[in-house]
Amino acid sequence: VVVLLAGGTGGAKLARGLLDEADELIVIANTADDLEIYGAHVSPDPDLVTFWLADRIDERGWGLAGDTFHVMDGLRELGDDVWFNLGDRDLALCLRRARRLAEGARLTEAIDEARQALGVKARVLPMADEPVRTHVKARGMWHPFQEFMIRERAAGPVEDVELRGIEHARPTPEVLDALERADVIVVGPSNPVISIGPILAVPGLREAMRARVVAVSPLVRGAVLKGPTAEFLAWAGHPLTSEGIAAHYAGLLDGLVADERAESIPTLVTDVEMADQEARRRVAREVLAFAP
Amino acid sequence: VVVLLAGGTGGAKLARGLLDEADELIVIANTADDLEIYGAHVSPDPDLVTFWLADRIDERGWGLAGDTFHVMDGLRELGDDVWFNLGDRDLALCLRRARRLAEGARLTEAIDEARQALGVKARVLPMADEPVRTHVKARGMWHPFQEFMIRERAAGPVEDVELRGIEHARPTPEVLDALERADVIVVGPSNPVISIGPILAVPGLREAMRARVVAVSPLVRGAVLKGPTAEFLAWAGHPLTSEGIAAHYAGLLDGLVADERAESIPTLVTDVEMADQEARRRVAREVLAFAP
Repeated sequence: VVVLLAGGTGGAKLARGLLDEADELIVIANTADDLEIYGAHVSPDPDLVTFWLADRIDERGWGLAGDTFHVMDGLRELGDDVWFNLGDRDLALCLRRARRLAEGARLTEAIDEARQALGVKARVLPMADEPVRTHVKARGMWHPFQEFMIRERAAGPVEDVELRGIEHARPTPEVLDALERADVIVVGPSNPVISIGPILAVPGLREAMRARVVAVSPLVRGAVLKGPTAEFLAWAGHPLTSEGIAAHYAGLLDGLVADERAESIPTLVTDVEMADQEARRRVAREVLAFAP
Repeated sequence: VVVLLAGGTGGAKLARGLLDEADELIVIANTADDLEIYGAHVSPDPDLVTFWLADRIDERGWGLAGDTFHVMDGLRELGDDVWFNLGDRDLALCLRRARRLAEGARLTEAIDEARQALGVKARVLPMADEPVRTHVKARGMWHPFQEFMIRERAAGPVEDVELRGIEHARPTPEVLDALERADVIVVGPSNPVISIGPILAVPGLREAMRARVVAVSPLVRGAVLKGPTAEFLAWAGHPLTSEGIAAHYAGLLDGLVADERAESIPTLVTDVEMADQEARRRVAREVLAFAP
């Protein structure tokens, strides 16, 4: 059993690679980016992973392939300031999730129903059922995570990060079972601070990680492919290097897969860019073979 | 000022005719058919009137012309039993309304924003801001109105009708002002029991109707064009005749416009079918000229 901790695109791509290379894959996804909007419950990271695993991710990098945006167009026509775009079928998924949660379903159950509806055989688990919401302080103001990312265009420097609600979150039974059964735990190449960080911050989760842990660096040739990883690592006080990634995960990792050697930790040096499915499978295969 | 009490299709068609024939038209619409679903607040009667007035009604007789149904298709793909169909732009309208209500807006305001966004110059007023919900008893079971209409296919006989919440409803200031300013009040050719009935049942509304009142019969050549008017009039104990309509509105009307004379009340006998805009204007013109 391979357990992958994943946030957004990098983690989701590796998940797709691992799906073909692992006997059994279980993804634990960040839910601190979730938001309630349009009467819906949006879980960007679990959905991104699910869409990738279902081969339904759109070319634009988020949302369902070929989705339309008629509801958003309708809201704009009514004069709404539509800052968070959601496709029509994506909205259906999130409206259904909101309804299931209102009916008393756990987030784990609601996310699993979507996974099954899309025909994905690997499980996608939220890190916790309790609501955790990342807030980011920049230019003296606190912003809910999605508003920081979209309305503020993730403009740093980041002054502070809060994972609101994290103290009430607990690893779900499904997460604890996955970690218990894991032969190897892979930390995906997602933002270490705001994507992987919330997962590791769920009280009791880190202690339940007893298998070997290998991280895949989100840095490609010393740079970040997507998202504000640089801004958040800077806030965390770590450089944009393999050593910075290793330092950020200090005490957690048995090894790092990166395109640059880290001094403090066993490193598999390889190309970690995952531009196509062949590359995703290759990285997945190398990670599984390396797991020290 | 012409004030029209309207429910569904018949009232909405007459509203469209009156829009061209009256100096100023204000529609008071039934909201006892409203429902909360998909995180949205659906107001079928005010919206039907608004779509007709905006020349945006779809050929199918409800919803916005040319609307798509991708969110509903998405819900079905996820395994939902989608019993209430709502187009994507229609959903946008109703999601926005739910949000505005959650923000503390009155239903009057939320409905007026849609009216303005669609460029309709006649005001469309909900009968009350408070929630009123029609429930129908049939075959020994109580059904929320839309579920009775759609899931139960309006299958009678109707055993009982309840307007839940009506005792807490009050005519809005806008409704009282409209009735005060009315030169004539027209009762539209909508279902007298479940479309017009809730409007007249709002405590204090009927007493505020001081202008002359003319009803347009919903019967065309002794038959009902659309909807379960026969079943509800039968429950109310009135025959499907002009006399039955007059008896149902006893004490309210100064005149009736119908294609069959009523004995108990001044009647303008004319063709009340409104198959096209020419017919809608003709009926509107005749109603305004007749108003005794």
